[in-house]
Amino acid sequence: MNKGIKLTRLIPILDWGRHYDSGKFADDTLAAIVVAIMLVPQAMAYALVAGLPAETGLYASIFGLSAYAFFGTSNTLSVGPVAVISLMTAAALGNLSLSGNAEYLAAALTLTFLSGAFLMVLGFLRLGFMANFLSHPVISAFITAAAIIIGVSQLQHLLGISASGQNLIELMISLSQAISESNFFTLGLGIGAIILLVWSKTGLRTLLLVFGIEERLAKTISRSGPILVALITGLLAFQFRLDQVGVQLLGDVPQGLPGLKLPNFSPEMVNNLVGSAVLISIIGFVESISVGQTLAARRRERIDLDQELVGLGAANIATSFAGGFPVSGGFSRSIVNFEAGAATPAAGLFTALLIAIVAVFLTPVLFWLPEVSLAAIIMVAIYPLIDFSVLRKSWQYSKADFAAVSITLVLTLLVGVEIGIGAGVLASILIHLYKTSQPHVAVVGRVAGTEHFRNIKRHKVETFDNLLSIRIDESLYFANTRYLEELVFKLVAEKPKLEHVILMCTAVNKIDLSALESLEKINETLGSINIKLHLSEVKGPIMDKLATTSFFKSLTGNNYLSHNQAVEDLKDSGKPLSRL
Amino acid sequence: MNKGIKLTRLIPILDWGRHYDSGKFADDTLAAIVVAIMLVPQAMAYALVAGLPAETGLYASIFGLSAYAFFGTSNTLSVGPVAVISLMTAAALGNLSLSGNAEYLAAALTLTFLSGAFLMVLGFLRLGFMANFLSHPVISAFITAAAIIIGVSQLQHLLGISASGQNLIELMISLSQAISESNFFTLGLGIGAIILLVWSKTGLRTLLLVFGIEERLAKTISRSGPILVALITGLLAFQFRLDQVGVQLLGDVPQGLPGLKLPNFSPEMVNNLVGSAVLISIIGFVESISVGQTLAARRRERIDLDQELVGLGAANIATSFAGGFPVSGGFSRSIVNFEAGAATPAAGLFTALLIAIVAVFLTPVLFWLPEVSLAAIIMVAIYPLIDFSVLRKSWQYSKADFAAVSITLVLTLLVGVEIGIGAGVLASILIHLYKTSQPHVAVVGRVAGTEHFRNIKRHKVETFDNLLSIRIDESLYFANTRYLEELVFKLVAEKPKLEHVILMCTAVNKIDLSALESLEKINETLGSINIKLHLSEVKGPIMDKLATTSFFKSLTGNNYLSHNQAVEDLKDSGKPLSRL
Repeated sequence: MNKGIKLTRLIPILDWGRHYDSGKFADDTLAAIVVAIMLVPQAMAYALVAGLPAETGLYASIFGLSAYAFFGTSNTLSVGPVAVISLMTAAALGNLSLSGNAEYLAAALTLTFLSGAFLMVLGFLRLGFMANFLSHPVISAFITAAAIIIGVSQLQHLLGISASGQNLIELMISLSQAISESNFFTLGLGIGAIILLVWSKTGLRTLLLVFGIEERLAKTISRSGPILVALITGLLAFQFRLDQVGVQLLGDVPQGLPGLKLPNFSPEMVNNLVGSAVLISIIGFVESISVGQTLAARRRERIDLDQELVGLGAANIATSFAGGFPVSGGFSRSIVNFEAGAATPAAGLFTALLIAIVAVFLTPVLFWLPEVSLAAIIMVAIYPLIDFSVLRKSWQYSKADFAAVSITLVLTLLVGVEIGIGAGVLASILIHLYKTSQPHVAVVGRVAGTEHFRNIKRHKVETFDNLLSIRIDESLYFANTRYLEELVFKLVAEKPKLEHVILMCTAVNKIDLSALESLEKINETLGSINIKLHLSEVKGPIMDKLATTSFFKSLTGNNYLSHNQAVEDLKDSGKPLSRL
Repeated sequence: MNKGIKLTRLIPILDWGRHYDSGKFADDTLAAIVVAIMLVPQAMAYALVAGLPAETGLYASIFGLSAYAFFGTSNTLSVGPVAVISLMTAAALGNLSLSGNAEYLAAALTLTFLSGAFLMVLGFLRLGFMANFLSHPVISAFITAAAIIIGVSQLQHLLGISASGQNLIELMISLSQAISESNFFTLGLGIGAIILLVWSKTGLRTLLLVFGIEERLAKTISRSGPILVALITGLLAFQFRLDQVGVQLLGDVPQGLPGLKLPNFSPEMVNNLVGSAVLISIIGFVESISVGQTLAARRRERIDLDQELVGLGAANIATSFAGGFPVSGGFSRSIVNFEAGAATPAAGLFTALLIAIVAVFLTPVLFWLPEVSLAAIIMVAIYPLIDFSVLRKSWQYSKADFAAVSITLVLTLLVGVEIGIGAGVLASILIHLYKTSQPHVAVVGRVAGTEHFRNIKRHKVETFDNLLSIRIDESLYFANTRYLEELVFKLVAEKPKLEHVILMCTAVNKIDLSALESLEKINETLGSINIKLHLSEVKGPIMDKLATTSFFKSLTGNNYLSHNQAVEDLKDSGKPLSRL
C-alpha cells in the first residue's frame, strides 16, 4: 500500500471526486433540492428540541453535511440534526446548572466537539465494534421511548404553554400545572398544521396522481409538507398578526453564516459532558451506519465502518466550531436522499450550499414562523419512530431479549434517556453472559447400528456403564466453565463404575484460558479417582491453540478425531446399558 | 417434593446429622484438632491484616465455622478468616474516615453483615452464576497481587516500624520513611520465626521420617509450625522481657466469648460499604467453591453451589453479630481438613469448640506473643499464593487473556484491590464480547467428488459464480450481527453474477433477537437486488425458535437440511468457477 491509497481512504472525496461527471452532478443537485426543502424546517425544529435557537439547526446542517462530504463513505447518508440525538443533547445539558443562553450554547459546543473527537478516536483506532454492544431490540425500545418523550415535550408548544422535564413523569406534571394557560389560537394552528402534514403524506400524493402528475414528482411534492406548513402558517401569522393573540413566533433569526465559535474547554465542563458525549456518539453512529449500510447494499455499494466514524467525527467537530450541536445520519432524510437519486456525497455538499443560501438570504422571513408549526413538524416526523412491536416480538421470541427491551423502554420513559440506554446496554450484556453461562450440554449415546450420537433424553441410544459421553453445545469460556465442572462432577458422582469421560467438542468454537484451566482441573480431579478424560472432534483452530500448551501431555486419556472411534476404543471393559 | 426434603436441603445438618456415627466422630475430631492448631495463630494474624484486634479472628472462626456446619454442604471446607478477604476488608474500611477502634470495628461488622446478606440473597434467588463472571486467570492474578500487598504490608511488623498504604507504592513510601526506626531485636526474632516455619514445612518432616515417625503423623506435626513458632517466641518474650527492648507484644486479649455486637446500620455506612461487600462476597464465594468442589469431587461427593451461598452467608451473618469480620472457605486449611480425614461438617463444629476453649481459657498466655511472630506466620502462609506463571501461560495461550491478567495484576498492585479486581472483571467481559463480536466466518466451497465443504482460502474446492456459501463458526447475537451484515454485503458487492447466498449454520448454537432482525434485514436487502438468502444445517433448538416467528415465511430462499443439497439445488443456473 502506498501513501496515495491511504490518503484516499482517509479522505474519500479524493477518490470519487476524480470521477465526478455531469450525470452525477444532475442527480446530486436534484437530490440536494429535495433534501434541503425537507431539512430546513426539521433542522430548526430539532434545534428547539435540543433547547437551542433555531439558527443553530441550520449551522449544524451546513457544517455537518459539508465535513461529512469530504470524509464519509456513504453516497446517500444525509447528516444533520436528528430527533433522538437532539433529545439526548437536551438531556445532557439539562443535567448541568447553566446560567444563560451563551453558557448553554458553549456547553452544547463542548458536547458536540467531544462527540466528534470520540468518534474520530474510535475511527483511527478501528474500534467501531464498540457499537455492537447495542443490541437491535434495545435500540428499537430506546428510540420508541425517546420519540414518546419528544412528542410529549412538544405538547407545550402545541398548547402555547411552557413546560419542562427529562422524563414522562416530570413532563406530565409540568404540563398539567400550566395547562390552564393554554392558548387556543396556538392549539388551533397546531392542529391545522398536523392535519396538513398528515394529509400531504397520504392524500396529497393520491390527489396529484389523480391529476396526472408523474409518480416520482408526486412523491417528491408530497414530501414538501413541512415547507408548505411553514409557508402557510408563516403567512397567516404575518397577515393576521397572530403574535398579538398569543401565538409564539420564532422571532429574530440572525442573518448570514456563523462566525467561528469556541466550545467551553474547561476541565470541569469536559468532565461533566464526556459521558453524555460517548452515549450520543455511539447512538448516532449506530443509527447512521444502520441506514447507511442498508442503502449502500441496495445498490451493491459498500460503506467503510471505521471511516464512517471519521466522517461523522469530522461532521461533529466542524459543527462544534460553527455554533451547532451534535449531528448524525438521519434515517428518513437519508432514504429521501437515496430515492431522489443522490449519486455521491456531493449531494450533501449541495444541500449544505442551499441551506447556507437560506441562512444568508431568507432568515428575515423566518421571523413570522410560529413555533407551534415546528412542533407540529416534529410530532409528525417522529410518529413513525414509535413502534411497540419489539415488545411483542421479543416476548414471543426470547424472554431474555424481552427483559432487556422492557428495562430500556421503562427506564428511558420514567427516568431519562441516559439511564435508559445505559441500563439497556448493561442488561443485554449481562443477559447474554447469563445465557451462555449455562450452555446446552447433553449426555449422548450411540444410535444403534450407526456412528451417530444423540441426546439420551430424546432418543433410544446405546450407552456403556464405564463410559460417559458429554456433548457441549457452546464455546467454553470463563462464564460457563464452572457450570461444566459442576455438571461433570455431578454426572461422575452418579456413575459408580465409570472409567472414561469423553467430551464431544463438535460445537465448541473457542476455549479460553479459564476453560483450559477448567479442563486441566477436571482432568486432574478425575485422574485422582482413576477416571480418564478424553476429548473428541475438537475443531482445527482449537487444536492448534491447545497444541501450544502442555494440556495434551497431562491429559489422562486421548484426543479422538471421531467420537465413535473413542467409544469403540474405550467400551471394551464396560458393560452395555440398554438405557441410562 | 414435600416440605421435609426442602428443609433438609436448606439445613443440610438435618440430613447428615441423622446418619452420624462414632466412626465419623473419630475422624472429625482428629481433623478438628489438626485444623484448630493451624487456625488459632492464622486467625489472629489475619485479624491484624484486616486492621482489627487479634481476638476478632478467634470470634470470626468460632461463629463462622459453627454457622457453616449447619447450612453448608461441603464435608471438608474450613471456613474462617482468609488472607485475601482480610486484605479486602482493610481496603474497604480504609476508604472510610473512621475515628477510633470502636467505630472501625462497627464498620467491619456492617461489612460482614452486608457480605453475608448478599450471599444469602444470591443463594435464595439461585444467582450463584454471578460468580462465573470472574475468570480463572483474573482471579489468579488478583490473588498474586493481593498476596504481594499483604507480604509487603507485613514488613512493618518484621522491622518493628509502623507503615500503611493500600497499594504497593503507598506501602513502599510509608516503609521507606520509617525504616530508620527499625528494631533489630524484632527483625532478628522475625527472621528466626520465618526460618523455623519454612524448615518445619520441609526439613522437619524429613527429620521425623528419618526418626521412624509414621508418614501421616509426620505430615501433621510438620503443619504445626505456626503453633511452634508462637510457643517458642512467646516463651522467649516472656523469659527475656523482649517488650523492654522494643519488641511489640500482642498484649491484653479479652478472655471469654464475645457478647452480642451490633453492626452499624446507618444508611450512610451501608451505602459506603455495600459495593465492597459485594466484591468481598463474590471473591470469597469463588475461592470457597473452587476448593470445596475439587475436594468433594476427589471423594465422588458433591456440593450444592446455591446452598453454599446460603452456608457462607450464614457464616458471615453469625460472625457479624459476634464481633468478627468477613470469612470464607480457606484454601490451605480446607486441604488440611480433607487430608486429616474430616468426614462431615461436624469437623468444623469441633474446630469451633476447640477455638472457643482457647478464647475462654488461654488468652492470658497470648499476652506474650510478639506481633512479629504473626507477621512471619502470614508471610510464610501467603508465599505459595504468589504465582506469576499465569502471566507466561496467558501470554502463550491467548493475548486477550493476557491483557485481562495484566490489567488486574498491575492495577491491584499499583492502585488497590477493589479497583484491581473490578477492572479485571470488566476487562474480561469486554474482551470476551470483542472476541465473539468478530466471529470466525469462512467462505466455503465443495471438495470435488465429496459432500464436504471447506474454506476456499485453505483448500482447493469447487465454487459457482451464482452461489455464495458462508459458514459461520459462532453463535449469532447482538455483538456480532453487524459484523455478519457487513461481511455479507461486502462479499455480495464483489460478486456481480450472484443469485444465491447460503448461510451454513453448523456451528451456530444460538440466534438472539438482534441476530434474527439482522437476518431479516439481510434477507430483505438482498431481496431488493434479486439475490435469494438460504440457510443450511440449522440446529434443532434454533429451528424450533425460528419456527415461532414469521422468518421462514419472509425468507426469499429455502432452509436446507444439508448444505450439499442446497448447492445441488441452486448451482444449475450458474457457471462453475475453478477458484474464486
